[in-house]
Amino acid sequence: MLGSGGRRLLTTVLQAQRWPFQLSRDMRLVQFQAPRLTGPRLGLESGDGGGVIDLNAFEPTLPKTMVEFLEQGEATLSVVRRALVTQLPVLPRSEVTFLAPVTRPDKVVCVGMNYADHCREQNVPVPKEPIIFSKFASAIVGPYDDIILPPESQEVDWEVELAVVIGKRGKYIKAADAMAHVAGFTVAHDVSARDWQMRRNGKQWLLGKTFDTFCPLGPALVTKDSVPDPHNLKICCRVNGEVVQSSNTNQMVFKTEELIAWVSQFVTLYPGDIILTGTPPGVGVFRKPPVFLKKGDEVQCEIEELGVIVNKVA
Amino acid sequence: MLGSGGRRLLTTVLQAQRWPFQLSRDMRLVQFQAPRLTGPRLGLESGDGGGVIDLNAFEPTLPKTMVEFLEQGEATLSVVRRALVTQLPVLPRSEVTFLAPVTRPDKVVCVGMNYADHCREQNVPVPKEPIIFSKFASAIVGPYDDIILPPESQEVDWEVELAVVIGKRGKYIKAADAMAHVAGFTVAHDVSARDWQMRRNGKQWLLGKTFDTFCPLGPALVTKDSVPDPHNLKICCRVNGEVVQSSNTNQMVFKTEELIAWVSQFVTLYPGDIILTGTPPGVGVFRKPPVFLKKGDEVQCEIEELGVIVNKVA
Repeated sequence: MLGSGGRRLLTTVLQAQRWPFQLSRDMRLVQFQAPRLTGPRLGLESGDGGGVIDLNAFEPTLPKTMVEFLEQGEATLSVVRRALVTQLPVLPRSEVTFLAPVTRPDKVVCVGMNYADHCREQNVPVPKEPIIFSKFASAIVGPYDDIILPPESQEVDWEVELAVVIGKRGKYIKAADAMAHVAGFTVAHDVSARDWQMRRNGKQWLLGKTFDTFCPLGPALVTKDSVPDPHNLKICCRVNGEVVQSSNTNQMVFKTEELIAWVSQFVTLYPGDIILTGTPPGVGVFRKPPVFLKKGDEVQCEIEELGVIVNKVA
Repeated sequence: MLGSGGRRLLTTVLQAQRWPFQLSRDMRLVQFQAPRLTGPRLGLESGDGGGVIDLNAFEPTLPKTMVEFLEQGEATLSVVRRALVTQLPVLPRSEVTFLAPVTRPDKVVCVGMNYADHCREQNVPVPKEPIIFSKFASAIVGPYDDIILPPESQEVDWEVELAVVIGKRGKYIKAADAMAHVAGFTVAHDVSARDWQMRRNGKQWLLGKTFDTFCPLGPALVTKDSVPDPHNLKICCRVNGEVVQSSNTNQMVFKTEELIAWVSQFVTLYPGDIILTGTPPGVGVFRKPPVFLKKGDEVQCEIEELGVIVNKVA
């Protein structure tokens, strides 16, 4: 048995051992395009607003899409760790077009009514089980791309969400093992056409949620070891600079681990699959009177540690 | 102006001109695996129960997945037309494992209540607009694979459906142009867990529809020029040899062209996307008393011209 001095020493040693992994605080993986470089590529974004390291230039055998990168597992991540500690040329941000950090995943899983405070706003009880719906992957756009307002809807609304990116295939994953299946986190905007979600299409939410451009993602896939506690992050949404949603991921009813356990009862999760974990209160449809997005609006979705995505409504 | 004799002659000439395309009656594209051949491959299945031509052996530059094949458009189809008129070695069916003709599409779009006779069975009005929901691509299995009965559901039901495979990308496709976006047709089984579809998950159908193995597809992608009229095909489902569904695709409320026009208002359709066009009457849940699938059952879903898929419940 260790005395309290011994325990303190052990804690210090363990914390010191964790330091090498703190490097990966900066492990912000992106997909990008740049002039004179062919096709989309994988990069490392610096968190301080600096430029992007071209991972495909550093290691030409690396895949060029995030889904393939994640499919290759731990080995590819160790390449990125090497890149992090090597002096490499950095592309200035002005030359880079950021794509969504994941494109064409097998699944975009969404969770409804997963913030306790968002349930109160709607006067509905907190659900006893997660409510799962989906978007098609074709709805995904980049962190600074436009949201195209469809003429078919008059009620397009905002929803900032924490998105979980799956890194390892699994079925019937136990909550206790779930974090081993997570690659990391990113910011998502679950743009929602309320008329189609709530009143049309036999009340199946899909169409209202899946118009093209209705899933901005980014700016980076921040690997899980770079996020000390994904369930204690400030989360907010601003429309034209005004804060419209402001909460904390500690308000989530079902946390990442429970959501992965729940969803993987039904489906096999694949590397690259994305889980949008629900939105906090402050959406437009529950305001009095309701407020919806219009052409020219600028929406900023921000989550502490992860960053901000900025999408104009066009 | 042509007289009636002239018109008859013209018709005969046009029919004669159509004959070369009748070759493609046999254009039954498959994905398969076989011993001593690496990975999934593209093949041509003979419709008469004969073997499979290995298209990747015939033309090594062809992609090995149907989605990539369709992405390459007309050029790849012309390779297949060449293969059809060439004497090529045929792999016996006994050596071949048939996969779903399309795997990992961007979208599996499903249509609810799209047979007039299926609406009557439920005592619901024929919908004025298509009702769209979805499965995840991870639910797709091959034409002779097992359906795994999940312990989470006690009410797993059958639904035979005509599936449309998209061949060409498009958004806001007009009904008049829709067939140009179709690669062909195949048979789908929209396996449905009624408890999860109808009573759980906030009445969002997704989970009940998307358990792993809940989308058997096949046996082949039959190209559209091989199907004289996709809206006049006998369609039936047999459970343990007993006919449980028997109708005709002429009962569809919204035809292929209207469905493509409808869905493409919301989303860009990609090559490989699949649209399940709804099921005729005779499903288990509306029987008195209801009947559900149990371990050991064998379900055969058959559509005229397209073929039959046979899936055991395990």
